[in-house]
Order: sequence, then C-alpha cells, then structure tokens
Amino acid sequence: MITINENYLKLQTSYLFSDIAKKVEKYTKESPDTKIIRLGIGDVVYPLPEVCIESFIAGVKELGEQSSFKGYGPSNGYDFLRSKIAKFDFQDRGVEVFEDEIFVSDGSKCDTGNFQELFAQDIKVAIPDPVYPVYVDTNVMAGRTKGYENNSFKGLVYLDATKDNNFIPNLPQEKVDLIYLCFPNNPTGTAITKEELTRWVDFAKENKALILYDAAYESFVTDSNMVKSIYEVEGARKVAVEFRSFSKSAGFTGVRCAYTIVPKECIAYDKEGGEHKIFDMWNRRHSTKFNGVSYPVQKAAEAVYSDEGRKQVQNLIDGYMKNAKLIFRELTALGYDCTGGVNSPYIWVDAQKDSWDFFDTLLKKTGIVCTPGEGFGKCGKQYVRFSAFNTYSQVEEAMKRIKNNKKEL
Amino acid sequence: MITINENYLKLQTSYLFSDIAKKVEKYTKESPDTKIIRLGIGDVVYPLPEVCIESFIAGVKELGEQSSFKGYGPSNGYDFLRSKIAKFDFQDRGVEVFEDEIFVSDGSKCDTGNFQELFAQDIKVAIPDPVYPVYVDTNVMAGRTKGYENNSFKGLVYLDATKDNNFIPNLPQEKVDLIYLCFPNNPTGTAITKEELTRWVDFAKENKALILYDAAYESFVTDSNMVKSIYEVEGARKVAVEFRSFSKSAGFTGVRCAYTIVPKECIAYDKEGGEHKIFDMWNRRHSTKFNGVSYPVQKAAEAVYSDEGRKQVQNLIDGYMKNAKLIFRELTALGYDCTGGVNSPYIWVDAQKDSWDFFDTLLKKTGIVCTPGEGFGKCGKQYVRFSAFNTYSQVEEAMKRIKNNKKEL
Repeated sequence: MITINENYLKLQTSYLFSDIAKKVEKYTKESPDTKIIRLGIGDVVYPLPEVCIESFIAGVKELGEQSSFKGYGPSNGYDFLRSKIAKFDFQDRGVEVFEDEIFVSDGSKCDTGNFQELFAQDIKVAIPDPVYPVYVDTNVMAGRTKGYENNSFKGLVYLDATKDNNFIPNLPQEKVDLIYLCFPNNPTGTAITKEELTRWVDFAKENKALILYDAAYESFVTDSNMVKSIYEVEGARKVAVEFRSFSKSAGFTGVRCAYTIVPKECIAYDKEGGEHKIFDMWNRRHSTKFNGVSYPVQKAAEAVYSDEGRKQVQNLIDGYMKNAKLIFRELTALGYDCTGGVNSPYIWVDAQKDSWDFFDTLLKKTGIVCTPGEGFGKCGKQYVRFSAFNTYSQVEEAMKRIKNNKKEL
Repeated sequence: MITINENYLKLQTSYLFSDIAKKVEKYTKESPDTKIIRLGIGDVVYPLPEVCIESFIAGVKELGEQSSFKGYGPSNGYDFLRSKIAKFDFQDRGVEVFEDEIFVSDGSKCDTGNFQELFAQDIKVAIPDPVYPVYVDTNVMAGRTKGYENNSFKGLVYLDATKDNNFIPNLPQEKVDLIYLCFPNNPTGTAITKEELTRWVDFAKENKALILYDAAYESFVTDSNMVKSIYEVEGARKVAVEFRSFSKSAGFTGVRCAYTIVPKECIAYDKEGGEHKIFDMWNRRHSTKFNGVSYPVQKAAEAVYSDEGRKQVQNLIDGYMKNAKLIFRELTALGYDCTGGVNSPYIWVDAQKDSWDFFDTLLKKTGIVCTPGEGFGKCGKQYVRFSAFNTYSQVEEAMKRIKNNKKEL
C-alpha cells in the first residue's frame, strides 16, 4: 500500500496567496465596476530591461541555428553568468565570493525550499516570525514540526520580529542548528546593519549552526549602513548560505532566474562530529534533482551586468522605491505606524485591528489588495504588508482611495 | 550543531555523466587530433523547430512591453499550454487526461526526482535495473535504502531487465508500494505493449501500489502495438502518474520544459488506510517549492502543437530514428547483440565484456563516446548504450570507425 508522507497533513489548508486570490476573484465578481489596485503579492509590473530583452532574444536565436545550438547546460549555470555575478555583485564590492560557489537556479523559492533537504530531520530550526511562508512549510513537509496551535508549529523556534525589537529578532535563547534570516525582510521591510548581523554570525559560529540568508531584496538597500550580503560580515563564509534573485531587481518573476552561494568553507557535521562540505552536498542535490536554467534565460540575466543593464535595473528599482516612499509617507500621515519602505519595497503597517479584517475592509471599501500579516505568522496578526510593486499612478490612486475612506478602515 | 542528512553519505561518489565527461576531457587532452563523436549522453543536437523559435521570441517581446508584461505565472503552467497538451497528446488519441491534471515543470528529471517526497519513508520501492540513475539516487537521499553492495542498494526491490525477459522486467515477487517504470526505456530502448503494461497496472491495483511512469521518450514510439501513455491501459488513472518532456521530442534539453500528469482519481493512503488524492499533495508541493516555468519557454512549447510545429517535431524525431536504425543495423552486422532502436533513440548493446572496459577501449581506439551500462545498474554490467542523438553524418562516421577497429574492441 502506497502510504503518504503524513507530514503533509500537518500543513495548513492553503497557501496564503491562493487564499487572497480567491477573495479578490470573489470581490471582482461582486464589484465589477471598481478597478482593483494590487499592492498585495510582491510581483513586479514594469517590463524587463531592454538589454535583457535583446540578450534573451539573441540567446533564443542561437538555439535556432545548428552552429550555435546548445542542449543540456551545466546544472550549476553557465560560466558567462556566474563570473559576472561573482565580479559585480560581490568582488567589486569587496566581498569574497567565487564564481564556482554560485549555483544558478530557477528561483529563490525553490532553493530556500529545497535547501533543508541536506540536513538531518531532528535538527532544531529557527525561523523568523513574520516570515515568507515557504521556510516554514518546507520544514513541515520534512517532518521537523509537531502540532499547530496559535498560528505556530510546535518544534520550530520562532524568532519574533515586533515593534519592541524594531523588527530585528533577538538571538534565540536556546541552541538551534539552522537559522533562516531574510534582510531586507519580507514582509516587514526591515534592513540590518553589519553590527547587528555580526551577532548572528557569531551566534552561528558558537553553536556550530548554519544561517540560510535570504537576500532576494538586497538591491533595494539604499542606506550604506545596511548590509547587502551576509558575506560582508567576517567569518560568515563558514556559517552562511546566501540566496539571491533576479526576480525583484530586474523584473524576472515570470522569467525565473536566481542564484545561491555556498562557500567552500561552509561546514555541516555528521553525528560523530565529522565535517562535511555543504558545497559538495548541495552540488550533489542540484545535479541530481535539477537540470540547469534555460540557456536564453541565463543570457537575459547576464545582460543585467552590462553598463547599460545596471542603469536600466537601477531605474526599475528607483521607480519602485519612489512608490515605497509615497506609501510610507501617506500612510504615516494618516496616522498609521509604518516600518520598511526605505531599504525595501515593502511597508509593514500596524493595522490596529485583525489583519484579515483590515484586508477585507480595505478590499471592500477601496478595491485595494494588501497582504494580511497573519499569513506571515502570529506576529503579523495586527499588521498588513503593502507592496510597492505597481505603477506610480496606481499607487497614487490607491493612497487617494485610502485617504478618502480612512474613517471606515 | 547543524547535522547532515546522513543518507547523502550512502550515495555513490559521483554522477554517471560527470564521470564520463571527465574521461572524455582527459582523452581530448591526450589525443587532440581525434574528433570525438558523442553517442553517450542523451542530448539532442539539432536546432529547435522554427515555430518554437518564433513563438519563444514573441513571448520574450511580450515581456518587454508594459501592456503585455507578465510576472509570476500559475505554478502549474499556463492554460494555453496545458489545454493543448491535453487535447493533442491525449484526448485526440482517445486517452482520458484533463487539462487541470497537467503540471508543467522545468524538467522530467526534477519531477521524477521530487515526486517520491509525497510518500512515507518506509514504503517499499521497486526500480528497474538498468535504469536512469535519478530514481535510485533520490530514494537514497530520502533514506529508503541501506548499504550498497554489488552495484545495488539494499532496501530497494530491483526489477531486472535482461535478455531472458526481453528487457521487460517481471512483476515483483514481493509486495511493493511504489514502482518506477520507463517505456520506451532508458537505457535499453525497449517499448511495452498494452497487454504487458496491463499486468503492471493490475498488479498496482491489487497491491494498492502507485506506478511512476516515465514516458519521456514516448514520441519515438513508431510501432502501433506499443503504448505511448500508461493511460491507454484501463484503470491506470487510479494507480499511475506519468512524466513527459519536450526535451527529446522538440529539442528542449537546454530550454527546460516538461510536464507531469496526476489524475484526480489517483490515491495514496495514510497509515489508517484513509484515502488521499495524490493530485492535492503534488499540487501543494509544486506550489510551495516551485514557481512555474518561464513564460517565453511555455510559449515556445505551445508552438509544438501547431500544424507546422507537429511537422517540424516529427522531422526531428525521424532524423534521430534514421540514426538509430543505422546504429542498430551496423552493430548487429558486426555481430553485436542489440536491442532498442526501433521505438527509441537508444540502442542497448551487449558489449561481451565489462562495460567500462568497452567504454574505455572504444574511446581510446575510435574517439567515440558511448555510455557504460554499469552506470545504469548491475544488469548493465556487460552492456553499453548508444544514443542516436547526433547528426547522421557523425553517426555514419562513428559506424565506420567501429567497423575499422572491430578487432580491437
């Protein structure tokens, strides 16, 4: 009898964004005249940079000619892309990351979800709250949790990010083995300083723990005091894996390209304390269960690093950050307590009521979609996330609608 | 302390095709004057069909315009592609598969590797021998095996495919829960009749087992007695998941697009015997750990189903099958016992000696790369796989070289 992985039964019934999509669909049917404004899901709206389009098409054309056709590529990504990532995203900024430590993939969601496979089932996992749901769900599937109660899974150590700690979680009070961190944070929009991140790296070293550092939003860091890569912190190469993406910077959410850095010094242990290179394990996993990113997609990603490409990407980011500033300013002026929005496209707003209630009322009264904080964990119960991923005119219109309906929200 | 998934330590040191690549690299350095002919890895060589290139480029261009830009797509694939798959690959051929049972992905390697995650760790798994290494390796990583001995993992049930059973494995003599099948087979090239496959479906029904049916090579089936889809067999929808790919048919190995069919009737059980839809579980897995295939890639795949697209794909297949016939005929004429090559691009050849010895000698004497059968399992110890994925002129040249060096092989 084919029996199931019963850990799947512990998962909560639905995925946050599907729930939201259903509510929006229902609203659209009931209010066909209101034009919905989406400030919910973190999906980009502006077209791909021109240089990416050109390079993407050139890559496709190569596949149409016998002389330049390419079949299976290296499962870790082509050197032409990995060398540029190493140079422009790290080495030119004084950060030590080498080309052969970079694994190109089809998305940070996949990589942050799959990485936990490399570790024992009985490790203690620390996960921020609020948090991108994939970290939690994939650990539930792997059997690292027990019952579910009060919007939390037993067996996980939650790193609460609240107003009291300025949305930077405190170090765990107990020993943990695997720590997920995300800065600039999704959903709170908080960035982290080198000094603060050093405390986490030191904690990991002391505890022989590993940090999975999700830096999918690093390109939105504008404040020079804030860290873009965990490898800016001394010693991080021994205890941290970093996830990066072209999704939010270059608008690749529908194109699918990301990368993960696994330094060669990064170590995990067998039960006898023997050391094993995490690089070797992820390499084995990646080459066994993955077959590389589409060649023309990698060509499109490469164009991000040309002179013109970096300008065009910066324009995209500047556009979204202009939105973020507007949302932050307007909501603050209306009396909402806001965080984020400075080094991040997300604004985390104290809704002063239950987050799903706020979501429902906002949708009903204004046709605006935000994301209820409860979907990110118990600490989000009274918060909502506004995303700056929309056009400036739509964001302006949204702020007007909220102002006009403030009393009812 | 971050401890590893110790099942990874049970994996054999390296991945078959990496080992081969290293040997070929070494040979190339030592014999720079010989032009290598690659009949090893199953990678296509002809350019993408023109219609795919056109549709691919049109898709890229849409991402460059504000009005047609697309961000995140449905994680299961766009309807425009899924509806065509359902119609052309199944319904028009009288096979019951519905659009919403199709999960578009970036490769059959990923899907056949990941699917086992849905099931309990203590299930009994039956895997053909010889076989594509991914089925075995991913079950090792998941902890379903014990020691390794005589090219086999303890804990797995091997379904031996040998000359004695015409390379169609016999039904297991013991109860098993999960069965991997692959027809047309990689590496033996054997196709299966409806009658023979019905025995497997019946076995699965009797044992409440599930069949993972890898049909990545179905487009090479030319003999009308042979099955293209397991759903041609009555009752298979309850007990089988099918994997398909655009890699070998339309030349998408470097483009990355495949799909998996999970019928709504397909059931697995909890320990109390309660029924669970495998569809719901895979849907949860797919939407949590995957984020959809690149939009332009799905546009390229859609073009395969246009009138012109089907002609162009058929031309590609005809080309490779012409190669397969030549390899089969020439090697048979030289006295080698061959199977496959009729409904498959692979020819499985009795090497009459250790397969790595044959591989090494063939490379050294002729500069031809084949795949040593031992890499596919113990039953391949005396076999090698020849792949028809090359140009006709290269295959002709290879056959000449083998003829001229036959005595030394």
